[in-house]
Amino acid sequence: MLRTLVSPDRIVTDPDVISSYAHDEAAWAPYGTAAVLVRAGSTDDVRNVVAACAERGVPIVPRGAGTGVVGGANALDGCVLLSLEAMDDIIEINTEERLAVVQPGVVNDTLRLACAERGLWYPPDPSSAPWSTIGGNVATNAGGLCCVKYGVTRDYVLAVEAVVGRGEVVRLGRRTAKGVAGYDLCGLMVGSEGTLGVITEVTVRLRGARSPERTVVGYFDTLRDAGAAVSGVTAAGIVPSALELMDRHVLEAVDAWRNMGLSADANVLLLGRTDLPGEAGEAEADAMVRLFEEAGATWAARSSDEAEAESLFSARKLSHPALERLGDLLTEDVCVPRGLLPEMLTRVEAAAARHDVHIANVAHAGDGNLHPVIITPKGDDDARGRAERAFDQIIADAIALGGTVAGEHGIGLIKRRGLRDELDPAVMAMHHAVKNALDPAGIFNPGKVVGTP
Amino acid sequence: MLRTLVSPDRIVTDPDVISSYAHDEAAWAPYGTAAVLVRAGSTDDVRNVVAACAERGVPIVPRGAGTGVVGGANALDGCVLLSLEAMDDIIEINTEERLAVVQPGVVNDTLRLACAERGLWYPPDPSSAPWSTIGGNVATNAGGLCCVKYGVTRDYVLAVEAVVGRGEVVRLGRRTAKGVAGYDLCGLMVGSEGTLGVITEVTVRLRGARSPERTVVGYFDTLRDAGAAVSGVTAAGIVPSALELMDRHVLEAVDAWRNMGLSADANVLLLGRTDLPGEAGEAEADAMVRLFEEAGATWAARSSDEAEAESLFSARKLSHPALERLGDLLTEDVCVPRGLLPEMLTRVEAAAARHDVHIANVAHAGDGNLHPVIITPKGDDDARGRAERAFDQIIADAIALGGTVAGEHGIGLIKRRGLRDELDPAVMAMHHAVKNALDPAGIFNPGKVVGTP
Repeated sequence: MLRTLVSPDRIVTDPDVISSYAHDEAAWAPYGTAAVLVRAGSTDDVRNVVAACAERGVPIVPRGAGTGVVGGANALDGCVLLSLEAMDDIIEINTEERLAVVQPGVVNDTLRLACAERGLWYPPDPSSAPWSTIGGNVATNAGGLCCVKYGVTRDYVLAVEAVVGRGEVVRLGRRTAKGVAGYDLCGLMVGSEGTLGVITEVTVRLRGARSPERTVVGYFDTLRDAGAAVSGVTAAGIVPSALELMDRHVLEAVDAWRNMGLSADANVLLLGRTDLPGEAGEAEADAMVRLFEEAGATWAARSSDEAEAESLFSARKLSHPALERLGDLLTEDVCVPRGLLPEMLTRVEAAAARHDVHIANVAHAGDGNLHPVIITPKGDDDARGRAERAFDQIIADAIALGGTVAGEHGIGLIKRRGLRDELDPAVMAMHHAVKNALDPAGIFNPGKVVGTP
Repeated sequence: MLRTLVSPDRIVTDPDVISSYAHDEAAWAPYGTAAVLVRAGSTDDVRNVVAACAERGVPIVPRGAGTGVVGGANALDGCVLLSLEAMDDIIEINTEERLAVVQPGVVNDTLRLACAERGLWYPPDPSSAPWSTIGGNVATNAGGLCCVKYGVTRDYVLAVEAVVGRGEVVRLGRRTAKGVAGYDLCGLMVGSEGTLGVITEVTVRLRGARSPERTVVGYFDTLRDAGAAVSGVTAAGIVPSALELMDRHVLEAVDAWRNMGLSADANVLLLGRTDLPGEAGEAEADAMVRLFEEAGATWAARSSDEAEAESLFSARKLSHPALERLGDLLTEDVCVPRGLLPEMLTRVEAAAARHDVHIANVAHAGDGNLHPVIITPKGDDDARGRAERAFDQIIADAIALGGTVAGEHGIGLIKRRGLRDELDPAVMAMHHAVKNALDPAGIFNPGKVVGTP
């Protein structure tokens, strides 16, 4: 039937290809067998698919590059997998209005590069930026390294075009700098993980290119000392342009893969950056060095070598693939109030010890956003059980500290119980009410995020 | 009946007092006769009122200081007017987490001052800041002068406590720097003008105190030249910390009231500011002077006198009360893409000429957010009819230029038709779906914003 609505070369029925699209990078999240894969080429394609599915009650699972880690893009039995990767045009980059209009399949780094060529900057920089798409970034409200100073994807989305309901194409948001015309339905779409419609175009706010960053490096013996350094930076009123943490397990994994010699020097590495211009930047970098030392750094200094600084940050971005070489990964994404970062790191260590699992820590430390990565030997079911208990323990600890179960990765499948633990039943009821109101046919990524009422 | 639920001293039935609370500052917007005024003292009071009204289908009109200008807080016949003014505690200002928790009745300037005493800054600065409340600011997603660089109220609201549905007390949002746990229902409440519930507590994000600002003043002969100067600043990649415009009518009104001598020197006044620190600030201020001159300023200079700069900005903030002395005001709030500001100013002048009305212009020029103020002699019905036609014309022009009918004041009653003109029917249907889903009893400020389905 779809063949009459969408060009046949956009429809894939080969089971091998379909199965390669059946899940994202979340280990252990369940996934089903899709009926068909559609590689949409236009908003019309998406509209036709949505209208047909709404009529027949067939679930749609939209997906970008599939780099998510919570199972949000995982196939449901009998669903239409709707890939937006082929809709990858940058439609407009407007210097005067400081905005860009892109199709959802544009890769984050591609947009950033195109903006940079015009002296503009699209800040959101998830570690997946070389592969992940803007559509996926918007659907998950992706974060990244510069969030600590510049905010997350939602802060940059001015407008979306989306196919909603039973196939209506709508534009939500605006092109103007400000606007309060009606409810913030554009913001509601951001982070809704495909459960309220399919995003077919995104208008993002841009900034001007910024000053070159200065990098500060600190080595610490313990997670607690490194956490104290982060709290010290925050308490001093410094807003760094990045503040990242990697523990010994991560450093060793990166060394084993790329032989960078990081773990010989440090147990815990803290990477700070400032992009303040001129003297203000000098002063802020010096202050971070001092605060690192006061918190007990075994060594702290400004990086004088830009190539070295870049390589340290690329080690940070490579931590996930480096860890993947060691086993199956269960990646956490809790976020706690900044001042409680040391306490939360301590609790993560306790969870590892208590449940006898190997946990590596990377963190957007300046945001209080931790990514404990629980690593288990491939195929070890017993270890997997312990990992899942540690995962639940960390979620419970984050909630107990006034934090959230999901800082930037989303809920997908694997955090649905965590979401119910975090939100009270009246708030969950509001979620269901909104979901039912905006997805009357119940076809948009059903069961994800809010689960089944 | 309410007397059994709320302390009797919080219930006002005196018709004179009730009528003084019956409307906000929107001229000509209709308002009805409330059954009762409740001055809530606690979240419990609000919950009890909401539960009782939900049971009986009685409409609730929440209000703060009543400084709105679109009729959003206007009474409906038989409604409960629910004033949040008495809930005015600053509950917490947290330096380490850079956030504040306040009750909705806290006045904007009161919060800003309390933050400043701790070296912190709450940026949103509507001109009503000396009187308007944080609750009202959140309900309308208020803007202000520093938005051009620092964003609007929504950008600072981390969490709200609200009474929703049939009296459920919910917490939406978070205390952490980041979070993607579920839909952005907190953002949805911001700007919903009391139509989705009653906000009883607000957690706002704070910034550190900023560097002192430098002020640049430009005099222009024509609105078009001043608009070109604004476009020049934007095109140069400068993001000023304020960029405000006042035309001859405003300058004369302020002079007539406060004798500041503004209108003797300029037809149109442009006030720019930069808060970049050190040399970068010097350079940005100098660049603005040069760009003002290049656009045809008859005079442009940096203000060397801080008191003078402050008095110019207070003239800007006093423009609305100064104009009120001249007659009835119908205040516009359109926002257009920044580059189209000169064109929109020209169209406003054309609308004034065509409909034979007196229009004064103030504008958050750097945002493309215009406030043409249509002034008519009190009691002149014919002039009022012409004013309403000019109002509609300006709205139509803004939409034609890709702008919005409401930059920061909200929709209330007077922009409901404008909203329908701006949004297409499928988007209006989404609004109604959300409203019905979250207000099943139909009691929250019914008829406002989205109108009646």
